[in-house]
Order: sequence, then C-alpha cells, then structure tokens
Amino acid sequence: MAKPTLDFWFEFASTYSYPAAMRISPLAEAAGVAVRWRPFMLGPIFKEQGWTTSPFNLFPAKGRNMWRDLERTCGTFGLPFVRPTTFPQNTLLAARVALVGLAEAWGEDYCRAIYRAEFAEGRTVEETETIAGVLTSLGLDASAVLDRAQSNENRSQLRAHTEEAQKLGIFGSPSFVTADGELFWGNDRLEAALNWARR
Amino acid sequence: MAKPTLDFWFEFASTYSYPAAMRISPLAEAAGVAVRWRPFMLGPIFKEQGWTTSPFNLFPAKGRNMWRDLERTCGTFGLPFVRPTTFPQNTLLAARVALVGLAEAWGEDYCRAIYRAEFAEGRTVEETETIAGVLTSLGLDASAVLDRAQSNENRSQLRAHTEEAQKLGIFGSPSFVTADGELFWGNDRLEAALNWARR
Repeated sequence: MAKPTLDFWFEFASTYSYPAAMRISPLAEAAGVAVRWRPFMLGPIFKEQGWTTSPFNLFPAKGRNMWRDLERTCGTFGLPFVRPTTFPQNTLLAARVALVGLAEAWGEDYCRAIYRAEFAEGRTVEETETIAGVLTSLGLDASAVLDRAQSNENRSQLRAHTEEAQKLGIFGSPSFVTADGELFWGNDRLEAALNWARR
Repeated sequence: MAKPTLDFWFEFASTYSYPAAMRISPLAEAAGVAVRWRPFMLGPIFKEQGWTTSPFNLFPAKGRNMWRDLERTCGTFGLPFVRPTTFPQNTLLAARVALVGLAEAWGEDYCRAIYRAEFAEGRTVEETETIAGVLTSLGLDASAVLDRAQSNENRSQLRAHTEEAQKLGIFGSPSFVTADGELFWGNDRLEAALNWARR
C-alpha cells in the first residue's frame, strides 16, 4: 500500500515554520507518512485580511510573546535560535528557488538551510548572494539555479501555489493538509497532522 | 517548601480556554504546581488592537480553522464539544460571579460548569438565568451570589484584573504566567507553562 501523504505548506518568512521544517522529516519517517513540501507566499494572503506586514508586527504584545515563545520552543527541541534583525523578510526569491529544488533531489536540504540561515544564524535571506551561498554550499551551480528560479514558468508556478493555498483555506505558516483535506495550522499541530494522515 | 505557582488567566468567551480549564487541575496536581485562577475580560484588550469582536470573526479563514481545530482538540482530550450559536458571548456577569466564587471554595467548579455549558452543551452563558442555574446546581444561593457579583467593589476588582493582565502583556486567553513572569499563551502551551513553573 502507498504511504499516506501530508502536504507541508510553508513560507520562509514565517518564524514557527523554522522548527516545523527542522522537525517534519524525522517525525514523518517514524510515522510512515510521505511529506510533500509546498512553498507559498503569505503576503498576498495577509493583504486580503488588510494586513500589510506580519500580524506579529501589527500587534506588538502578540509579537513579543511570539519571539519569546519561539526561543523557548527551539530550546525544547534543541534547535539553535538567533533572532534576525529583519522581520518579516522578503522571501520571494528564496521560495522560487525552493520550487526548483523540490522538483529535484536537493529541495528539502535547501529549505532547511534557508531556515537555518534565517533563524539559527539570524541572517537575512532576502539577498541573491545569501541564496547563492546556500546553493553553492549544497554543491550546486548557483547561477544556473537562480536563472531557472527567475523564469516566467517558475514564477507563475509559485503564484499558482499561493492561490492553491488560499483556496485550501490556508491563512498562516506552517500549515499541514492531509489527503482528505484536513487543515492543521502551526508547528504545534505537526504531530496531530501526522496522526490524522496515517489514520 | 511551598509549591510553585502558576497564574491561569482566562476569559469565558474564549474557545481554547475551555479545554485549558478542563485540563489544568489534574495536570497541575500531577506536576505539583498550585494554580491561581484569574478571570479577566478580553474585550478592552482587543479594543486596543482595533478589534471590535474576536479575531476569529474578523478573519474568517482563521475562524473556520479554529472551530475545526477546537473540535479535533476536544476529541483528542475526550471532551464533549458543541459549537455555541453565539460567538463571542458577553461574559461580563459570568466573570464577575467567578471572582466571587474564587474567593471561596466553589470558584473552580463554577468556572468549569460555565465552560461546559458554553462549549460542551453549546448554550449561551450571557443570561442571568443561565448563570443562576449553574449556581443553584452547585448548591449555592444564586440570588445572594449575583448581588455580591454586581457590587461596585467586585466590579472594580474585575476591572483591576483586566488592567493587570494587560500590564503582564496578555493579549489572548488562555494565558499562563509563572512566578518569574514567563507568559505562555494558548491551551497548547499549558504543559510547557507547568514545566517552566516547576523548574
């Protein structure tokens, strides 16, 4: 029988998506669930709610708690954490590159490397140079990958992903969607989503 | 040595506070932590963020997910769940009565009974009659309790609680605050808050 599947929807700017991205593969492996990594952009979805930036910036008490809670959460899972100076970051290029990688074998390693750069090292991942550095460290031809990432076809694919996310009712990252359409939101729902997927 | 303490801040209108209220006592008992129940009103705090109702109503995708997730969460913990027709409910009187009860021995039972009426039976708990019924079922003189709940002194105490919550950085319910000032938000942070309290 084929493994049950779970779609992992993520936006690189999202803080709680960092622990989710670092945790999902071993947990899914143990649960016997196949995960499909689905990058998308939260910006257009936030705009529909009237938000021009992250709700963690719009609502400062919530934002303060999020940073502290993220630090505690990373501590619990033994993940290094350094708060980046820029938040949220413009992750359009990073997401376009992820799409290219996820169609090949290096996509998941690349995604984890971007999250690590951003939230374990506190770096900005907006710049082409940072992304090129990550690609090079994975043994890839950075300039060739970046060209493919910026192709019209790849750009429209990312837009289509974001529209699909919106149609699924996704409003935040990370989100997990099972084959039967159950939507789970948040790093703290990862285990519940995996349990649902393998019922 | 005295038991470590944890303040449990809750608003009766809050959905995820229902599983938190039903779970906290046995978990705290097992963890050797003394819990102080602190009712407060979210309305004034939401208003400061520019919200005139629950964010779950303001942001429909988030609201849809919350109801489904709450149902799943209650299922996980074996708690009955019936979605009330009114949301959020005006819980001012319910909170005033809770303050009276928590100064006596029946406060926690009363709080659980209100949450049960609202989210296990899907009833409205806005009306004096519903609250009086809960009080009577606890063997209390409902009319005497309601008089004390509506006293000027008790009303100002609830306002003072809400102001204290705001000063602590509380922006949602349930919230848990440890003796050393760590703030944890959400039913899904209850275990982490208890662990922190007893470190």
